[in-house]
Amino acid sequence: MAKSNKNNHKIYLDYASSANPSSANPGAIHQLGVEEKNKLERARADVARILGAQSREIIFTSGATESNNLAILGIVNAAHIITTNIEHSSILEVCRHLENIKKAQVTYVPVEPSGIVDPEKIKKALREDTVLVSVMYANNEIGTIQPIQEIAKEIRHFNKTHSSKIFFHTDATVAVNYLPINVVKLGVDLLSFNGAKIYGPKGVGILYVKKNTPVGPIMFGGDQEFGLRPGTENVGGILELAEALSVVEKVKEKEVKRLRELQNYFLDKLKKIPLPFVLNGDLKNKLPNIINITIPKIPSDLLVIELSAYGIMTSAKSACKSDSGEGSYVIEALSPKKDGEIGGLRFSLGRETTKPKLDYTIKVLSQVLTKLKKWYN
Amino acid sequence: MAKSNKNNHKIYLDYASSANPSSANPGAIHQLGVEEKNKLERARADVARILGAQSREIIFTSGATESNNLAILGIVNAAHIITTNIEHSSILEVCRHLENIKKAQVTYVPVEPSGIVDPEKIKKALREDTVLVSVMYANNEIGTIQPIQEIAKEIRHFNKTHSSKIFFHTDATVAVNYLPINVVKLGVDLLSFNGAKIYGPKGVGILYVKKNTPVGPIMFGGDQEFGLRPGTENVGGILELAEALSVVEKVKEKEVKRLRELQNYFLDKLKKIPLPFVLNGDLKNKLPNIINITIPKIPSDLLVIELSAYGIMTSAKSACKSDSGEGSYVIEALSPKKDGEIGGLRFSLGRETTKPKLDYTIKVLSQVLTKLKKWYN
Repeated sequence: MAKSNKNNHKIYLDYASSANPSSANPGAIHQLGVEEKNKLERARADVARILGAQSREIIFTSGATESNNLAILGIVNAAHIITTNIEHSSILEVCRHLENIKKAQVTYVPVEPSGIVDPEKIKKALREDTVLVSVMYANNEIGTIQPIQEIAKEIRHFNKTHSSKIFFHTDATVAVNYLPINVVKLGVDLLSFNGAKIYGPKGVGILYVKKNTPVGPIMFGGDQEFGLRPGTENVGGILELAEALSVVEKVKEKEVKRLRELQNYFLDKLKKIPLPFVLNGDLKNKLPNIINITIPKIPSDLLVIELSAYGIMTSAKSACKSDSGEGSYVIEALSPKKDGEIGGLRFSLGRETTKPKLDYTIKVLSQVLTKLKKWYN
Repeated sequence: MAKSNKNNHKIYLDYASSANPSSANPGAIHQLGVEEKNKLERARADVARILGAQSREIIFTSGATESNNLAILGIVNAAHIITTNIEHSSILEVCRHLENIKKAQVTYVPVEPSGIVDPEKIKKALREDTVLVSVMYANNEIGTIQPIQEIAKEIRHFNKTHSSKIFFHTDATVAVNYLPINVVKLGVDLLSFNGAKIYGPKGVGILYVKKNTPVGPIMFGGDQEFGLRPGTENVGGILELAEALSVVEKVKEKEVKRLRELQNYFLDKLKKIPLPFVLNGDLKNKLPNIINITIPKIPSDLLVIELSAYGIMTSAKSACKSDSGEGSYVIEALSPKKDGEIGGLRFSLGRETTKPKLDYTIKVLSQVLTKLKKWYN
């Protein structure tokens, strides 16, 4: 009986590992399992190469929220953590949880009115018992870019002068499409992002964990992902994510240039809308694809719905209602004393965005505002 | 300007929520977001209907490992937990973690030599401070089916007579394909499974959480999934999982009958292999698709590799090496005093399994054993 070649006599009797033979369990030691494992490790190596990391430092998760939870909940002995007041909720709520269960003290460094954190203020917050600093690479609501390299330098300097070991995490979720993501050049120990924001799959994320960073698992039950993340690996999703990241790197420079032009074009056109507005977040240190405006007195969620009726998909954080926790703490952080509506209407551009689409958007927005301004005055 | 109909003038400016317009963020309030949310909730309702549950009780996760972690780590005030000694590692390792951090005492009730737990022994382990009992519906290695309904009755009786509130979780991951999964009839408060084992997607799981079961989130950062599981929902994967579950229910009765016949056929043929073997686990109360054997002295992982060379994919837990934690604690639990090799070779059958494939498997296995028995005597 000849040993089978790759395509003959495949008899799959491992349905209890994975019911789908074409997507075998990468933990299986048979041929199909080994092939899946090889695909997984190639994807990991591809991601590592793009990030300037080692394969061993790439952990696949179910998304950026899990990556952020793993980075912060998983850090060992997190006595004191420093973050900012405009992080994504998957950072802020984890920090609050650690405060609630008295596992950590947290310093929330406020950003400047520009939406950018001053590295000096991070520096001043560093303590002997600080274990982790977490500052997002770019903000998802207003697009401001944080000075990650400068903060990394401050932490390195503090570590040297105080013989301490403070680790640095950045949530790079909305930054990956447009900013350099070499982890060595950035100077970070931990970096999170996901597939859904880089034209890849939902339900898959990455946490870069630099060698010797003391992170332990937050879920238990398997030794996958170097013991940091149990559960059968979603190989299909991981391959799609690695491919999406590879495409992002290929088109990044061109897309940044193209979107920066579109962003300027859109901002210029916006000046003609029939109501005054505030542009949220620094204009210079900003992602090329995010424009966030507040139109005083007009609820931004209403604008999203009105625009949607014309086929235009945008996003909003509704006006902050006291104690509801539903408002935009990001926009409030830029201008804490403003009364009334502090919601923001976010236009986030991407690969299919063109000038004619932005022209139409301005036209519809103007029309909607002309109608609404009669009612909201 | 006419309001657009569904297919006209779609201008997507929400790339920062999801870079893929055809898979918008279900948390977005624009038309595409609402459509995604509707799809998600239809899938949830479909799953709930099949389980005999309410939509509100279905939580989508990243897989069975996460579901099991959520069920156990998430249970509030878990002073005392009861489980068995043959649960999946995503139960056992979570329990050990809770013991390690002194958050819970855990009683591991040993199964009988049949691989089935005696409900009387669960009953005897119940205490006034017991909060959770977790017993798998069927075992993934040996296929034995646990008396879930009887255990549920014991717990209900104890709760009544002691005014206590002990909750009951079952890991139904390998059971869903073949056993009834109406949660009310089963009498469980929590039930886990995933997509990968039911001919659905990897990276998606379900936790049924009965109303008023005190489970809290184990990750933080969003109010998705009724506040129990943060992060943008993987709608595509969830739809695939709901569809896979629906197919399982349609073909279940027929598949159970067909596989039971194949299982008997295979067991009969196995008698002719050239070495004696032990059949692991009760034969009667067993899933129709799992056959697990131990061939004394022959390492089961070697058999998997030999069979794989002939295109036959099976699975094994290697022989238990002291302190390595790598062996099969399940098979060891059946016969704790056996010396030497206690690995198990698992054949798990499925939708594409046929008699000719099993014939070929027996033929190859016999040939492999004839060769190996010269070396391993």
